[in-house]
Order: sequence, then structure tokens, then C-alpha cells
Amino acid sequence: MPKQVDHRARREAIARALWTVVDAQGWARATMREVAREAGVSLGQVQHYFASRAEMLAFAMEFASEHTSERVSRGLAALDPPPHPRDVLRVVLTEFLPLGPDARATSRLNAAYVLEALHDPELHGRVSLGLRDGRALVERLIREAMDQGWIAPDRDPVVETDLVLALTGFAPLIELDVVSADAALAAIDRHLDRLFAPTH
Amino acid sequence: MPKQVDHRARREAIARALWTVVDAQGWARATMREVAREAGVSLGQVQHYFASRAEMLAFAMEFASEHTSERVSRGLAALDPPPHPRDVLRVVLTEFLPLGPDARATSRLNAAYVLEALHDPELHGRVSLGLRDGRALVERLIREAMDQGWIAPDRDPVVETDLVLALTGFAPLIELDVVSADAALAAIDRHLDRLFAPTH
Repeated sequence: MPKQVDHRARREAIARALWTVVDAQGWARATMREVAREAGVSLGQVQHYFASRAEMLAFAMEFASEHTSERVSRGLAALDPPPHPRDVLRVVLTEFLPLGPDARATSRLNAAYVLEALHDPELHGRVSLGLRDGRALVERLIREAMDQGWIAPDRDPVVETDLVLALTGFAPLIELDVVSADAALAAIDRHLDRLFAPTH
Repeated sequence: MPKQVDHRARREAIARALWTVVDAQGWARATMREVAREAGVSLGQVQHYFASRAEMLAFAMEFASEHTSERVSRGLAALDPPPHPRDVLRVVLTEFLPLGPDARATSRLNAAYVLEALHDPELHGRVSLGLRDGRALVERLIREAMDQGWIAPDRDPVVETDLVLALTGFAPLIELDVVSADAALAAIDRHLDRLFAPTH
């Protein structure tokens, strides 16, 4: 294996191990030592690839984001063409909820990442940038749907974007058995039905 | 001071110190040693009151919940009588967002608590119960408002309750500068205006 590829593959293996540890035991117990054990490498190797626990988390989060993008792409490819903008938005939104094992692991990693970012300015900047990109994508989808007449012209695209993003608040509610996955999906569908109602 | 009162007061002082440490440095750095330092007591004293870090967190969370209830009560008392159910719901909801220093500290504590609860069955049960109580309160408010004709009779109170609860998803979005506090409040107001629209 070329050295560059090898380096990348090893970092990914460690990121995947971190993902597994965070999903099963939580970020609090995800020490570099525990991740090394899970990945089957030495602590020194983990420290060779990541200077700090925060850096390891940041890389795992990037890795998880790529996985999320792939799940979104697969979800979009499964829609009947041409995809209705309502269904596109639903695929994007629901992939951020802990509804499957992969999405659940990512959601838990994300919660740990957000919490860590509150007190780490560099991480805060990175998380914030990533989320603002996500917000811009949703706003673009909503504006396009308005242009195409799927959403009533008197809706405010900024407000509608923020309300759709806030629905990611179902993630902890599902994890803590406050709202079932089915109830969360029903509520999301109701919200999207109302948004995509050109006559209102 | 009677012994019981003294015990309670000391636990509260330690919980308040934990609150300060979590707000400023994050849960990851809130060791019992750091909390003892902040509270100006010995590590042994902290360990005397709390058997574990998780128990200390659970107590701090109870303490924070009482504070939140007090803020909600003050917010409700400030409404013009008789309070409109829409405004009652708005007070309850916005007190869970990191809009003031007190609410921000509670919100951060809460995020740490939720993350910890994912991997601690006892804590999971406790957090879940508390949140389901909160959900029941919101559903009761919504059902009463429907009975009084403030909300259209064809709305599903379960779905509407879940959608209102999901708006707590603005908390991390505000913390990470994805949505401003003003934009979040504007979106919440829009959502509540649509909910409290008897003709729709």
C-alpha cells in the first residue's frame, strides 16, 4: 500500500474505532487508550495520528459526515424521479436522526462533538462552519421549492429553514424515549406537509 | 444551622460550583477535584456528598430544574392576566433555550446530562422520566387551549406537542452560531402563531 493511502486508512480505522466506543460507551469513556484497544493498535500509534483527543474527535466527525452524505445520497437515489423537493428535504432531515444504527452512532458522536465545541474555540469554529454549510443547503432547497411554486410565496425562507433545522431537536427526544421514532417521523411529515402547501 | 439544612446547603453549594465549571469549561473537565476547588471545599467533602460524578451531575440537574421552574414562574407572573395559552407555552419553551446566562448554564448542564444518560441506565431512566413529565405538561397546555378554542379542533394534540418540544433543537443551533437568538425567537413565534390559529 502506498504510504499516503496507508496513513489515511489507519486514521480511518482509528476514527471508526472511536465511533464504536462513543456509540457503546459514550464520549466520556472514549480515551485514546480505549480507542487504541478497540482499533487493535498501540496507544503510541493513536498518538502518532492524532495530537489530542479533540483532534481525534474532529477527524471521526469528518468521517461520520462523509458517511451521512453517502446515506443521504443513497436515500435521494431511491426516490422516484424527478424527486419532489419535499421528499429531498425529508431524506436530508431524517438522516440526522438516530433512526438506524449508523445514524445513531453519528448522532451520538455529533452530540459529543457539539458539547466539546462549546469550550474549544478551534473546534467551535469548525463545527459552526459545517453546520452553517448544512443550513445554507437547506435554505437553498427551500428557496428553489418556493421558486417552483411548491411552497407559498408569502413564507419567509429564513424562518422556514430555521424551523426545519430545529426539528433535529427530535434526536435527543428519541434517544431518551420521550418521543418514539414513529411519532417523530409523523410530526416531521406533518410539518413538511404544511410547509409544502402552496395554497396556504 | 440544623444538620439537615446544613447538609442540603452544602450539596447545593457543590451543585452550584459544578454548574459554574460545566458552563465555563465543559462537562469533560468537570472532575470532582475541579468542582471541589471551585466550591472551596476539599475533595473528600465532595466525595462525602456524592458517591460518583454521575450522582453529582444528577443532583446539579435537579437543582438546575428548580431554577428553571422558578424562571418559568417569574416569566408567567409577568404576563398580563389572564395569560394567553400561547404566551404560557412561549415562556415554558424559551426558558429551555440558552438565551440568558442562567438558562445557558442549565442548557449546557442539560446537554452533558443527556449525553451521560445515553450510557448510564439509571440516569437514562431519571432523565427520561423528567422529560416525559415536561412533555405531559406541554400536551396538557395544548389540549386545554384546544378545548378553549384557541387551537383549531382538527389539530392532533400529540403531533403538536412533539413539534413544540422539537423546537428545543434551537439550543445547540444558538450555541454554535448557526441561528441567532433573535432568529430562533422569530421562528418560535411564527410556529406558535400558526398553532394558535383557530381558523386553520
